[in-house]
Amino acid sequence: MSTASGRNGELALLARIRKRAAMQPAPNLRLGIGDDCALLRLRPSEELAVTTDLSIAGRHFQLHLHPPESIGHRTLARGLSDLAAMGARPVAAFLSLGLPRQLAGKWLERFFDGFFALANEHKVPLAGGDLAESPVAVADIVLTGAVPRAKALLRSGARPGHLLYVTGNLGGAAAGLAQLKKLAAAQTAPGRRAAQPKPEKIPAKLRGNLAPHLYPQPRLAQGLWLMRRGLASAAIDVSDGLSTDLAHLCDESGVGVKLLAASLPIHSGATLQQALHGGEDYELLFTAPPSASIPRRIAGVPIHHIGSIVRARAGAHPITLISHRGSHPLAPRGWQHFS
Amino acid sequence: MSTASGRNGELALLARIRKRAAMQPAPNLRLGIGDDCALLRLRPSEELAVTTDLSIAGRHFQLHLHPPESIGHRTLARGLSDLAAMGARPVAAFLSLGLPRQLAGKWLERFFDGFFALANEHKVPLAGGDLAESPVAVADIVLTGAVPRAKALLRSGARPGHLLYVTGNLGGAAAGLAQLKKLAAAQTAPGRRAAQPKPEKIPAKLRGNLAPHLYPQPRLAQGLWLMRRGLASAAIDVSDGLSTDLAHLCDESGVGVKLLAASLPIHSGATLQQALHGGEDYELLFTAPPSASIPRRIAGVPIHHIGSIVRARAGAHPITLISHRGSHPLAPRGWQHFS
Repeated sequence: MSTASGRNGELALLARIRKRAAMQPAPNLRLGIGDDCALLRLRPSEELAVTTDLSIAGRHFQLHLHPPESIGHRTLARGLSDLAAMGARPVAAFLSLGLPRQLAGKWLERFFDGFFALANEHKVPLAGGDLAESPVAVADIVLTGAVPRAKALLRSGARPGHLLYVTGNLGGAAAGLAQLKKLAAAQTAPGRRAAQPKPEKIPAKLRGNLAPHLYPQPRLAQGLWLMRRGLASAAIDVSDGLSTDLAHLCDESGVGVKLLAASLPIHSGATLQQALHGGEDYELLFTAPPSASIPRRIAGVPIHHIGSIVRARAGAHPITLISHRGSHPLAPRGWQHFS
Repeated sequence: MSTASGRNGELALLARIRKRAAMQPAPNLRLGIGDDCALLRLRPSEELAVTTDLSIAGRHFQLHLHPPESIGHRTLARGLSDLAAMGARPVAAFLSLGLPRQLAGKWLERFFDGFFALANEHKVPLAGGDLAESPVAVADIVLTGAVPRAKALLRSGARPGHLLYVTGNLGGAAAGLAQLKKLAAAQTAPGRRAAQPKPEKIPAKLRGNLAPHLYPQPRLAQGLWLMRRGLASAAIDVSDGLSTDLAHLCDESGVGVKLLAASLPIHSGATLQQALHGGEDYELLFTAPPSASIPRRIAGVPIHHIGSIVRARAGAHPITLISHRGSHPLAPRGWQHFS
């Protein structure tokens, strides 16, 4: 491609993104895409929550397996889920994309279809970002959110005696991914690499099974509810897997936990192992003192009591899994950033 | 590598980064690395500036050519320069890194040596980020800054009759890169790929020539000075190249510009072409009404008057270059994100 058409193509691409981004309502955004920085305004009583999550092709998503809409949705969902875990309301998103040239057309439009569908649902404007050619597709999502001063849900507030809860259910994303791989393999001629299953060839009853993996729902309403009522002593989202994220919460709080296997809300079709280690469910894990009145549902989503916080024991794994087989230490076996 | 040692290695790596990050002073940072989000507090009279910049190996930096300290420095400098162009003071940085496994040890330590040297100089804490294994090294830098409400320097305020200024000088980064490539080639055996020149083998007088490319200085003090005095009508930083960034400023302001070739402060050893199109100088380009009293130096850095804002002409390039050869339209020929 010539220099001139390369530049024109790039400007046209940026103009399309900017136009789509400008369609979002944005009460806290004073200046969006188009300057050196975006400008955000908070209420004086608020502090700003910031999180970044890097997604890389071949690692966090598979170009041959995932529809672009799902990759766009999941990229944004990862960031929104971090805001949910702090009890913050979303203010603005920023997206840095590195893409191979061949993905900069139709694929990118479909990526943004998925991205903006979720952004609109949660009224999050895209306020900036960066775009570059890259040999590997990468997407770094930045979410900013607002939370009243000193009210954010932290990982560090769990104390012995507090109870452990989780929203929704676990293992659905891991089970969905396994199902997606199976479908792709079944629709692929022998000897060829499995490719994205064709939507029209996916039996209707299986589509629902894929949703927790392809289109996970960040628990923003539940995080806000808990923050406003001041009931939760600690919170984290289940992104890397229950065994890994619960260990983070315990480490930051300096406590241990007894996890009740029989109480875990396992997604239909998922295994206990997928619920314990699968990751990407984007449910909220939170603790509260026994005196707190935690309802059975928050904003329509079931809440389950799944364990109790105990004292940390030096040198021991923080998580003890209690099951019909007895009590056993549970090592973190979820997602590893380097593995 | 086994699962267990992979996790231990990763935790140790994160712990080292967290320890280094915690050494920064951070008055506006209520919560840094270690939770789902960082928490920032601004003064009620301030708004928040946010910028993200993606750097990719082979495109924004060359692993075989650039010392890791320089890559760390330049990654942060790109973000700081965007804050400078808004007149914002830095509040906190966030860094998402995707790295091939073999770079996660010594290389990464040296990357952070360069990163934190510049961060300390400008008192910017590293407040969060993400880390993942990646087939290609990528670094996405996010900078947050604070600026008094309605005082930020924007790209959109230039008006016909205003004068155009630039800080420091131009073309030094492009000339330095050319010099670096030459040095690398000269130190490499015939038939082998050029590699990083050995510092001890670089003649002392050449080291200074490489600095504008390897260790560019973001103009934070100059941006703050202009913001506080309210003298500048528009500003942008020279990251993609004068011809490209000046066109952005003109587009956002809806104006044209007459650029005086003879007035351009060209870095010693650089060519006019490098000054016009080279990029990565991270100088500030700004406009001011003729009534504004712009000094010859701001915070120790020379300021040059290099042109005048004029009315936009429909369908024409916004920049007219005035030189001894006459007046000619100057097409943007700087950095392209897709090329």
